[in-house]
Amino acid sequence: MKVSELGEFGLIERIREELGSQDRARSILGPRSKLLIGIGDDAALWQSTAAAYLATTDTLVAGVHFPRENVSWTDLGWKALAANVSDIAAMGGTPEYALITLALPDDFEVDDVLALYQGMIAVGREYGVVIAGGDLVCSSEVTINVALTGRASESQRGEPLALRRDAARVGDLIAVSGSLGNAAGGLRLLLEDKPASPEATTFLRRAQLRPHPPVELGQALLRTGIRCAIDISDGLAQDLRHVCVASGLGATVRLADIPISDHLSRTFPEDAVAMAAGGGEDYELLFTGPAGVVDRVRGRFAIPITPIGSIVEDAEHAVRFVDENGQEVSFPSAGWDHFRGRASRQAGRARR
Amino acid sequence: MKVSELGEFGLIERIREELGSQDRARSILGPRSKLLIGIGDDAALWQSTAAAYLATTDTLVAGVHFPRENVSWTDLGWKALAANVSDIAAMGGTPEYALITLALPDDFEVDDVLALYQGMIAVGREYGVVIAGGDLVCSSEVTINVALTGRASESQRGEPLALRRDAARVGDLIAVSGSLGNAAGGLRLLLEDKPASPEATTFLRRAQLRPHPPVELGQALLRTGIRCAIDISDGLAQDLRHVCVASGLGATVRLADIPISDHLSRTFPEDAVAMAAGGGEDYELLFTGPAGVVDRVRGRFAIPITPIGSIVEDAEHAVRFVDENGQEVSFPSAGWDHFRGRASRQAGRARR
Repeated sequence: MKVSELGEFGLIERIREELGSQDRARSILGPRSKLLIGIGDDAALWQSTAAAYLATTDTLVAGVHFPRENVSWTDLGWKALAANVSDIAAMGGTPEYALITLALPDDFEVDDVLALYQGMIAVGREYGVVIAGGDLVCSSEVTINVALTGRASESQRGEPLALRRDAARVGDLIAVSGSLGNAAGGLRLLLEDKPASPEATTFLRRAQLRPHPPVELGQALLRTGIRCAIDISDGLAQDLRHVCVASGLGATVRLADIPISDHLSRTFPEDAVAMAAGGGEDYELLFTGPAGVVDRVRGRFAIPITPIGSIVEDAEHAVRFVDENGQEVSFPSAGWDHFRGRASRQAGRARR
Repeated sequence: MKVSELGEFGLIERIREELGSQDRARSILGPRSKLLIGIGDDAALWQSTAAAYLATTDTLVAGVHFPRENVSWTDLGWKALAANVSDIAAMGGTPEYALITLALPDDFEVDDVLALYQGMIAVGREYGVVIAGGDLVCSSEVTINVALTGRASESQRGEPLALRRDAARVGDLIAVSGSLGNAAGGLRLLLEDKPASPEATTFLRRAQLRPHPPVELGQALLRTGIRCAIDISDGLAQDLRHVCVASGLGATVRLADIPISDHLSRTFPEDAVAMAAGGGEDYELLFTGPAGVVDRVRGRFAIPITPIGSIVEDAEHAVRFVDENGQEVSFPSAGWDHFRGRASRQAGRARR
């Protein structure tokens, strides 16, 4: 059935039914935060005990952020919400309530809308995010907009505490969680007819379609004494550049130290490094801090933490990649600019 | 300059400069809520003392929600944010922080983006709303999405209190604030070459372009004992129907009692009643309550409050309009469905 046949209010009713089963997400939220009014009123209402709040919003546009073919609506729903969860993770907070805006053509299938929601509900089950409301509008393009609120971490004295982009200091180590470039590799496998082992295909496609932002790591970084972080959504080069600009400093990254998975390096032996340095959507965390603090972090978590470089004085706020000999390496393109088009998604080969 | 020439991050910087002057909005928020991190990090962060929160989201799509001609970007910015403020008003809350997502074609003018923001900043100055972040994406269509948070009202015992759609009771009077149909009249004047007095033109266009949701009225309704309300955004007939469905009841509205401005009735003598009953975007409040409570409300505010009907038992949850003789009057079309197209915007003439 098309959404035009069901109508806006019939569709809202179907979504409401679909959202009935958010018990798991609500139980993760627990007694600290309680949804009092959800979908179906003018606004959502929740009771909460937190002293400080986080809010973020992120949008997926069909054809810009995702190919319309080869990707299921459930995967897109997952990714749309996970991208926002990643922003809350990058602040060291706990995601709580989401508002979902879908812009859809009138011939969009109702089942596809429900599949989108199933993907988002699955994120909610894993991260304790409750979908509390949203908006539906008719549009020629499919657009998925998520606004997500979260509770901020607090210091022992009850003061709000957050990881910030502008808190890097000269001499800080730069470290990243997990391995990078997998999502870019997964996208290549979705778009191109490229031979890859079944294990690598599963791993890389999953990195692209089902990112798992490390929310607990963000919170733990704050507790350990880290104050500067960003999520890697636009690509290492670009996101680290955001940290440099915000902090008024520069960065040097040792190319050989960027963590790359075996699956990525075996599937794309020539492009893996460029994908890791420039490819986006990994939704890992990049953070900076004094060597001693970064070391403490490394010992504490199951998730791999890899130092890749350091923060330096630099009036240009540049990110410089260097090889084993300390020689600077440049990339033909890195990162993503919404109004200048794709770059990192076609990350080229690293070259001198 | 086009946004593609400035680039995403240059544009964010320009918006950030534009948002520097939100002092008035911050001072209205006062000490009860303080923005700690605004635009430019992964998420916004604010400290707050409220016990319960509201959140809503609403979207304007060019060509669907507004004509691309005859309307300035500043007016659209105002309206996009005001529509969300209206949702918070309809819950009896206080709007606080907004996240703005703009989907824009790459040849969109930077000055028009800034004009959009100026309209939103103007709403912020009036209502104490601080723009705390957002997202920019490239799209073939212009879409303005706003997510707005607010603090909920509280009972004297500190419990969260909100106006709800599902709280109507049999025998409740139905009342509305202000006068209805002005925004529909204003839209007709924008789209058609219709003769009207300069005063009426100014008044009706302003109703369409610069709606002023009665936020303080919503809060006062709660204090007076009203528990059921909705904002009139889709049109009286449709929004009252939402209340009926949510409350499991029906409604009878006396057509002759619907408040209509002189400007509307003089400019559209034949269509004014249909515009008032079916036209959307007035952003007034509709509420229900016992006669004694509604009477108390009426005596208290400068803004006109008009009883227009009553809540009745009705298994069909219908909204029935009746004339002076109690005869039912039907409308050819009323209300708005996003996936079934425009209706109230072309509200026809009332007929038996």
